[in-house]
Amino acid sequence: MNNLPLSALFTDYYELTMAQGFWKQNKDTAAVFDMFFRRQPFGGGFSIFAGLDNLLETLTNFSFSAEDIDYLKKQNIFDGAFLEYLKDFKFSGDIYTMQEGSVIFPEEPVLRVHGNIVEAQIIEGIVLNQLNFQSLIATKAARVWLASKKGSIMEFGLRRAQGVDGALSASRAAYIGGASSTSNVLAGRIYGIPVAGTMAHSWVMSFDSELEAFRAYAEIYPEKSVFLIDTYDTLNSGINNAIIAGRELKEKGCNFGVRLDSGDIHYLSKEVRKRLDEAGLEKAFITVSNELTEEIIGALVKQNAPVDSWGVGTHMVTGGSEASFTGVYKLAARQNAAGEMTATMKISDNIKKTTNPGIKNVWRLFDEKGMACCDIIALEGETVEAGKESRFYHPSGDFRQFSFKPASVREMLTLQMKGGERIDKNTPEAAIKKARAVASSQLEYLDASYKRILNPHIYKVSITEELKEFKMSFIKDNIDQTQK
Amino acid sequence: MNNLPLSALFTDYYELTMAQGFWKQNKDTAAVFDMFFRRQPFGGGFSIFAGLDNLLETLTNFSFSAEDIDYLKKQNIFDGAFLEYLKDFKFSGDIYTMQEGSVIFPEEPVLRVHGNIVEAQIIEGIVLNQLNFQSLIATKAARVWLASKKGSIMEFGLRRAQGVDGALSASRAAYIGGASSTSNVLAGRIYGIPVAGTMAHSWVMSFDSELEAFRAYAEIYPEKSVFLIDTYDTLNSGINNAIIAGRELKEKGCNFGVRLDSGDIHYLSKEVRKRLDEAGLEKAFITVSNELTEEIIGALVKQNAPVDSWGVGTHMVTGGSEASFTGVYKLAARQNAAGEMTATMKISDNIKKTTNPGIKNVWRLFDEKGMACCDIIALEGETVEAGKESRFYHPSGDFRQFSFKPASVREMLTLQMKGGERIDKNTPEAAIKKARAVASSQLEYLDASYKRILNPHIYKVSITEELKEFKMSFIKDNIDQTQK
Repeated sequence: MNNLPLSALFTDYYELTMAQGFWKQNKDTAAVFDMFFRRQPFGGGFSIFAGLDNLLETLTNFSFSAEDIDYLKKQNIFDGAFLEYLKDFKFSGDIYTMQEGSVIFPEEPVLRVHGNIVEAQIIEGIVLNQLNFQSLIATKAARVWLASKKGSIMEFGLRRAQGVDGALSASRAAYIGGASSTSNVLAGRIYGIPVAGTMAHSWVMSFDSELEAFRAYAEIYPEKSVFLIDTYDTLNSGINNAIIAGRELKEKGCNFGVRLDSGDIHYLSKEVRKRLDEAGLEKAFITVSNELTEEIIGALVKQNAPVDSWGVGTHMVTGGSEASFTGVYKLAARQNAAGEMTATMKISDNIKKTTNPGIKNVWRLFDEKGMACCDIIALEGETVEAGKESRFYHPSGDFRQFSFKPASVREMLTLQMKGGERIDKNTPEAAIKKARAVASSQLEYLDASYKRILNPHIYKVSITEELKEFKMSFIKDNIDQTQK
Repeated sequence: MNNLPLSALFTDYYELTMAQGFWKQNKDTAAVFDMFFRRQPFGGGFSIFAGLDNLLETLTNFSFSAEDIDYLKKQNIFDGAFLEYLKDFKFSGDIYTMQEGSVIFPEEPVLRVHGNIVEAQIIEGIVLNQLNFQSLIATKAARVWLASKKGSIMEFGLRRAQGVDGALSASRAAYIGGASSTSNVLAGRIYGIPVAGTMAHSWVMSFDSELEAFRAYAEIYPEKSVFLIDTYDTLNSGINNAIIAGRELKEKGCNFGVRLDSGDIHYLSKEVRKRLDEAGLEKAFITVSNELTEEIIGALVKQNAPVDSWGVGTHMVTGGSEASFTGVYKLAARQNAAGEMTATMKISDNIKKTTNPGIKNVWRLFDEKGMACCDIIALEGETVEAGKESRFYHPSGDFRQFSFKPASVREMLTLQMKGGERIDKNTPEAAIKKARAVASSQLEYLDASYKRILNPHIYKVSITEELKEFKMSFIKDNIDQTQK
């Protein structure tokens, strides 16, 4: 967790039973797995790829301790020789991946693992666990941030997050997606995220009066006071006392804020703004919180609620109504008995669950204004060229197709791990800053219609003619074979 | 994590700024905080209290390292003397709590912290983080388990869980709530949960044919084979090959299973059962998975789908449509300037957010059959007596009230931590077993109407006459004061 070494027992049991099976047959069989996801969360039009730096760092230390091996021995299902092999287990493969922070779309590989089939199988769980969760939260945070018109978002989720790592990783991913700060001090220390906070109801309740509580805080933190004004009665007590304590701060040359944590935010923020302005406290700022979502924030912004910053917790750090990302990890190619790499494909009754066979890369195509127009999945070795008109096809193999001449193109998956070692390793702090910059700049080149909170336009992800032909022949062969 | 020492920086920033404020005034001010929750998740009629053992264990080691103190120093907001105090910080208070695994209801305190106000404030985040998450998942798992009519539930959630600890703690909480096993091998090792698994599509795809893949697995694991039959075509290919490989196993005296992971489970499980039976493989079992929830499982059980065990992942380990538990931590009493303990109360415009003042315990009242009838919140020192008729009141202070003579009673909060040290410490394995037994036995004494998945009966949580009078006088005083 969070760059501490993690036992390779953090895997599904079947990975180890299958690994033993592969190992007994031929542990050096080469395999290629794709990670991709199936559906945009939150009914949105984009996702943000996050969790990569934690994943790569974890993989460099992912191994079995002596106690782990003893535990496996007690399961009475693993051979001594296989357990010996696991003692020295270390991921030694290659990983091609999108940059952390990238805008990503369903069906396209976002990460590709090349390794022997044993190791590629054992790491499946940690790959999905890290990338699914952080991508979910970075995506949610980007939606919240865009809904606030790139306002100031304080992530407040520690107490409602799913466990310790659920909180720390969520603080990290939320910052990548656009949050400006976190309340989680440990996340601040580990990742260099700015920390922020206001005051709790318990502070106010622990004094004999609300005014005394505000004055005591203002005396200790004259430059950092945000008064929580809803403990007793927002408009009849809280704002009055905040104005008294705030004027005293103003006399000392200090500004302050007030925080609303319950009630009708639209009504209360307007009333509170009016009262502050009437008292000559035009610079005092208003922070709001209480089960905020991108939909609520978007509505308040549209109604011009005078809110200066947003405290967002529960929904941003858990996903709220959608608590998981649909990333999967599927075999794309393997070495056959003759030693050659051969493409593989899962053919499901459900066309949505049918995979794209073979080793693939993703190309992002841009128009002359530099706006992203579509992503193209191509077989390795294929090139999508700038300035050249080509025809692309819908991945389900139906009749949809289109022709496009990109002004520029970008190959999205690049080598980030070679022989189990990281290329381009950064500090945790530098990695998160870079990922945040990638997210922000890629969101810029995405048309506003794809970023709508409700009913966005669907960004095109298509396949090349060569991949389409290959996929069709694969399906035909399979039908012929099962009908034999 | 999971019983590794955790930095006390795992707290909200405002806890530390408030802590410094309290410390400057009088760090030894005694305070009592209640943890309670506001609303049953999933539209259900009960919750299961979980995460306690991890919490208590974490609290015994919750401290600031030298690096943590350096980090705080750099924030330029904390005094040197306060940082010195934090260097030696250790939670030294008392904790009264329900047993882990208890059936719990909204509004009632499930845990009560007595400590100095500085320490009680700093631990708020970890208390809520651990108990909120595990209670959410234990509750979800109990619903899944009850919907399956106490069937065999395999927890499969590692890859969709919210981070590493999101997975490990979810495996733990799901087992407490009624799951029989986990796929997460590390959770198996840490908590002694039985581990289980089947096979992945990648196993099937890495062989030249499906039959070859099944035979290879059966050869290595003759007594543990569960064939995944939906990689290519469940009814035209998968079941046929499973029957061939399964008959070969039967000849060796071994049983086997098949797993369905896509398509219409009701239809496919009936067809597959028929085909297995026709082939003389009546003992072969059927396992199903694929985005299962308690609602889907309940419907399949009602329609007599021939399913022997359930693989449940995403929804059980994240909560699915509801990803957080509404637990809060509120000041109930504090020492005033005169050194006396005085009750505190948060009075909100929203009656639901108004707290019950003072130091309280919870009494569970039973009828002569031993069934739980209601929970009563009482002030400390009050006794609810078996065999004695008493009148109890709705906590919102409206007109609802009732009279009841319990056949037996139980005081629910007991001392589990004294002066920062645990009472009755168990191994992680013993703690989880005990919690699982508590959940199972308390669910037994809860009437079926409270356990319905949809629209359950609402279990009564009421307050004593003394607490009602106390609360009313508190509200009246506050109104008088704010209207002055």
